Amino acid sequence: MAARRVYADNAGTTALSKTALDAMMPYLTESFGNPSAIYSLGREAKKGLEAARAKVAAAIGAKSEEIYFTGSGTEADNWAIRGAAEIKSKKGKHIITSCIEHHAVSHTLGYLEKQGYEVTYLPVDNAGRVLAGDLNNAIRDDTILITIMTANNEIGTIQPIRELGAIAREKGILFHTDAIQAVGHIPIDVAGMNIDMMSIAAHKFRGPKGVGALYIKKGSYIPPLLYGGGQESKRRSSTENVAGAAGMAAALEEAVSNMSANIEKTTAMRERLITELLKIPFSQLTGDPENRLPGTASFVFECVEGEAMILMLDNAGICASSGSACSSASLDPSHVLLAIGLKHEVAHGSVRLSINETTTGEDIDYILETLPPIIDKLRSMSPLWEDKLSGKL
Amino acid sequence: MAARRVYADNAGTTALSKTALDAMMPYLTESFGNPSAIYSLGREAKKGLEAARAKVAAAIGAKSEEIYFTGSGTEADNWAIRGAAEIKSKKGKHIITSCIEHHAVSHTLGYLEKQGYEVTYLPVDNAGRVLAGDLNNAIRDDTILITIMTANNEIGTIQPIRELGAIAREKGILFHTDAIQAVGHIPIDVAGMNIDMMSIAAHKFRGPKGVGALYIKKGSYIPPLLYGGGQESKRRSSTENVAGAAGMAAALEEAVSNMSANIEKTTAMRERLITELLKIPFSQLTGDPENRLPGTASFVFECVEGEAMILMLDNAGICASSGSACSSASLDPSHVLLAIGLKHEVAHGSVRLSINETTTGEDIDYILETLPPIIDKLRSMSPLWEDKLSGKL
Repeated sequence: MAARRVYADNAGTTALSKTALDAMMPYLTESFGNPSAIYSLGREAKKGLEAARAKVAAAIGAKSEEIYFTGSGTEADNWAIRGAAEIKSKKGKHIITSCIEHHAVSHTLGYLEKQGYEVTYLPVDNAGRVLAGDLNNAIRDDTILITIMTANNEIGTIQPIRELGAIAREKGILFHTDAIQAVGHIPIDVAGMNIDMMSIAAHKFRGPKGVGALYIKKGSYIPPLLYGGGQESKRRSSTENVAGAAGMAAALEEAVSNMSANIEKTTAMRERLITELLKIPFSQLTGDPENRLPGTASFVFECVEGEAMILMLDNAGICASSGSACSSASLDPSHVLLAIGLKHEVAHGSVRLSINETTTGEDIDYILETLPPIIDKLRSMSPLWEDKLSGKL
Repeated sequence: MAARRVYADNAGTTALSKTALDAMMPYLTESFGNPSAIYSLGREAKKGLEAARAKVAAAIGAKSEEIYFTGSGTEADNWAIRGAAEIKSKKGKHIITSCIEHHAVSHTLGYLEKQGYEVTYLPVDNAGRVLAGDLNNAIRDDTILITIMTANNEIGTIQPIRELGAIAREKGILFHTDAIQAVGHIPIDVAGMNIDMMSIAAHKFRGPKGVGALYIKKGSYIPPLLYGGGQESKRRSSTENVAGAAGMAAALEEAVSNMSANIEKTTAMRERLITELLKIPFSQLTGDPENRLPGTASFVFECVEGEAMILMLDNAGICASSGSACSSASLDPSHVLLAIGLKHEVAHGSVRLSINETTTGEDIDYILETLPPIIDKLRSMSPLWEDKLSGKL
């Protein structure tokens, strides 16, 4: 048993906040009605669902009727992209995205490519930023959708969404953003940021797993991904997960109302991690030093295997991740790290420490005490390390 | 405030069982890890997820690796049908279903019809049963999928699935069943019943809302509906809802281990409801008198509006439903009641009382005291009732 447990994988998933759990409990117990039922128990559930919708809307500058609850952020991404592709296919079949999207976006686009759609993958700079000029140049007459994430899950880079959205809007092209890493962590205003569709996942901001939402700007229509009973204004069928929606809304409301303080606290801890860990030789910050998520400190350490680092950190009670963020089970070299110009062998040495407002200064102390010796140890066992030190590599 | 509350809409949704909630709580609190993460907190969540999968599998005679968790029964239906249509489209585009399916099936098929698929809707007899001969006659060389529900949500009729599945299997056609009303209530054995794919929803058997599963027989492949991180053996992406899966599994295990007793108890209460309520003149049981779900007592009462009945029952503290089961908000005359040969005006007078093992004899007493006077009162206000009584109608 480790001396201490430090959870530093909040970009992977978060612990449910007490506020969120408390908001869920009535709907997991006495208020279990089906919100589509017309009797009072059903209306009570419906009231809870609509209150949750209003809270989610308020948190992102949307109207209630623009929020559609889903079973996950992945579902929201799939729905937005497949829906847009389907409804706009008469206009064209060209879609623009970035080369550092989450797989929920990139694999959905991969599926569409097999159906005859054409996808342009915009490059990013070394900081992981999409350049507005590249987007402008990629737009064609048959471009029907632009989908670019708000913030990257692996390296924390925040995209200039307002600017990219403005380009899309000027050209009359639907603009979707996977904001799953951003919502609840940085200010989001769908109207001010020129967003037509935006994906959200509750478990990234201390809400429950298995709940997400898609914001769809009023006036934009995409066909359903799930057909059935006609819930969610006939756009997303399924008996509504009222407890989940209530938990998501409570968590998001809490995150947004504490956002300034959370950003300040988290950023300070993140900067301490970055400053101290970059003292390790042959280390590098990944992602944009300025425009990055408050809680994401991501690195590559040469001559170290990410997986080994994660397992040794785990032994010491620290939860962190490497490579692809949400499914570390896949240990392919990350497409994101390659896209920002890292070599394969360097990308393998990635670590992401993602903290949040529940992280303490002592947690940071413990990480800073624990990680450098792990890297030393792993390097001492690496056949490449001697060559690296002597400058041969 | 009513004297008593009797919940008789368990086919709409159920109250979460204590066992299910207890099974969820660890994953809503300390064991919050992402099951895809390789550190111990993640592995712990993964263990919970796989234990849940094994329980669900055992409850329906499947293997663990044949169970794919989804965000709802609706998602499972959509996935099975769209997936089968996509993967088999080179063989043909003909699908067979019944005319009394839940909208999660029928509206998905409606979508496919717009995409160029052809759907045969098998009729049902007056009891709501699909006849094997009709299925046999409908099969063509280009038939790629047969999807017929195990038990109907409105009238409780249980289909001869084993026999229908055998026909499909003999012809080498994929056989899917929406078993959302059946699982946890009547014995289900996917192997013995010749089922290739089967949809499940947790909230119908005292599990949580927002969780479902699709059984896919080993060796059958359908492409994903949700692309992304590659969870669920790369077939259904999304961070796994571990708490939801654990709740579903615990509820189902409980339901199956008490099934004989539950069936006996529930059937006896249901029969009492049927016997007593059919004493009301101009009343009729809907669905099969024999092959019906243990907890579903469904009726039509002439010269009464279903909606008014539901609201008056609600005033008296009784939750029941009318028309389309899962989304009573829609008050169109039910396609199911029309399919079993009822006239429009008669179908409007439908009531479904769906009970389960938590229902008590006193609940039944209360329903039997309360419903007949409501019907009398509504009839006395109906302009048609005098004509009906005098035989003019």
